[in-house]
Amino acid sequence: MNRRNFLKASAFGGAVAMCGANQALGAEACECGAGMPKLVPPAKPAELNLCLQWGGIPGKEVNEKLDYLEQNGFKAVELPSYEDWIKNTADKFAKAMEGRKLFVATLCGPSDLSKADPAARKAEVERLKPYIEKAGELKGVGLIICPARSKPELPFPELREDFVTNTGKELAEYAARHNCTIVLEPLQRGETKFLRQVADGASMARDIGKGASVMGDFWHMSKEETSFMGAFISGGPLLTHVHVASLRSRQVPGMDGDADNYVDGFRGLKLIGYRGAVSFEGGFGKKDKELTDAWRNEKILAMKQLLEEQWAQA
Amino acid sequence: MNRRNFLKASAFGGAVAMCGANQALGAEACECGAGMPKLVPPAKPAELNLCLQWGGIPGKEVNEKLDYLEQNGFKAVELPSYEDWIKNTADKFAKAMEGRKLFVATLCGPSDLSKADPAARKAEVERLKPYIEKAGELKGVGLIICPARSKPELPFPELREDFVTNTGKELAEYAARHNCTIVLEPLQRGETKFLRQVADGASMARDIGKGASVMGDFWHMSKEETSFMGAFISGGPLLTHVHVASLRSRQVPGMDGDADNYVDGFRGLKLIGYRGAVSFEGGFGKKDKELTDAWRNEKILAMKQLLEEQWAQA
Repeated sequence: MNRRNFLKASAFGGAVAMCGANQALGAEACECGAGMPKLVPPAKPAELNLCLQWGGIPGKEVNEKLDYLEQNGFKAVELPSYEDWIKNTADKFAKAMEGRKLFVATLCGPSDLSKADPAARKAEVERLKPYIEKAGELKGVGLIICPARSKPELPFPELREDFVTNTGKELAEYAARHNCTIVLEPLQRGETKFLRQVADGASMARDIGKGASVMGDFWHMSKEETSFMGAFISGGPLLTHVHVASLRSRQVPGMDGDADNYVDGFRGLKLIGYRGAVSFEGGFGKKDKELTDAWRNEKILAMKQLLEEQWAQA
Repeated sequence: MNRRNFLKASAFGGAVAMCGANQALGAEACECGAGMPKLVPPAKPAELNLCLQWGGIPGKEVNEKLDYLEQNGFKAVELPSYEDWIKNTADKFAKAMEGRKLFVATLCGPSDLSKADPAARKAEVERLKPYIEKAGELKGVGLIICPARSKPELPFPELREDFVTNTGKELAEYAARHNCTIVLEPLQRGETKFLRQVADGASMARDIGKGASVMGDFWHMSKEETSFMGAFISGGPLLTHVHVASLRSRQVPGMDGDADNYVDGFRGLKLIGYRGAVSFEGGFGKKDKELTDAWRNEKILAMKQLLEEQWAQA
């Protein structure tokens, strides 16, 4: 998949009005059985672009990891927004990506824009900017932002107002100038009280405007949403990234058995013509550091098969 | 439509797990064109049950108003949760409903459970209980509740916690004992900072459990949601009521011309097999009191035609 086409298709930078799904969709409606709505297929059909986070990819050297992704049918890679990775690995990574078909999805790391002290919020905005620059430089979709962690100091609704008109706005405008986007990530209530649902993140991204988008993480969504499908449709053209994990223990999809059902969510992604990454974020087991690449590889390939089967079912 | 079947179909009282839409739906999936998801039709197809609020129905006497609804193809009636209506009209209404096919949708009036003083919140809970009793007595779907008006005194997230485990919980349990439900209404940001989206209301209703449900008001949704369809799917089996108005000026649907497009929302209602009321809440014009019944009648019938046409398109 070509990244520029993806950005165009997902329209993350544009003004998005009501009825995202409806507007994003293309030509004629088709009827699907008695009593069912006549749905309008998206201009381009959705794609399942499976993706791994850097730390979880088997292999030691940069090229070894990228070879693993390509050889096993992954389409994208998610990178860490941590200082040491940027310092030690980003340049090697950029070089190793030359000529590959993989696209860079998001950069993912910590953020918190909910401190009561305006100077602390401003400092966090400045700390995040280099990662946005790097996301743009690596032709990535953008930088994941969690506006507030579990105990925001700034009270709600002041926090929303500040994020939409000040901190988030500044970061989004910076991202737009670097040809990428900030990607708002809703978290489950144990990790945040502020942004818990995809529809809320989509409304914030819409209010911010150019340079802001939203993502959905199946694991967080399983705690907070009443419908995976509804949530993704509310994301619509503003949805630029998806995380996936097993739905009970946040490990590799499939490790929680029958609980790991992504079909309803995948139906939502198909309806909106989603062509971004579906990226595994979660653990491989309780003792990650002791796990061998062979163990990871086995789990990763089983996950890939499971997600592809459920995508076909959806 | 039989009210008991509606309550059963909408499962407002039951525990609702993830993927409401998916779970509420019935048997086999059907495929709708290349790249489109295989959607599962609902067990029973959705119905457009048009409804008017009591104050907007042409006619002076109770029977005259109910005759108007029946003769013009309306299926439901929405009542005021105001003391004077309960005192002066409710008994006459109950008698006049005997033998009619109309069903009682919600009772609608003011509420606010966001005062900092626990005694004030408790007093509001007690003030609302008689309307819940009346909703049950009239075989209505339930009482509409707006948990907080524009400036909640109780800070968020304490307000959510208090509503879900205390005030809203007590009202919902009371409603369940009276065979109806509290219907959480998300409002646009000018009227509340607390509950603005259907997905959030659905998650609160799920967290409360038995006796709680959610509604969507197209006018409020047009300000707060990114997708009518996504929002209604997130409501899923917890969605028990819908308000409709013109999307710019909150008058009769159609009075804002091409802006009044409900097709995307109606697609969502069809997907979840919605069989509750779609009730007009809005103004007839700036000088409502000077308007004649003839004027109202003309606007109401034009609205009905518009909504029926868009339902058929959806």
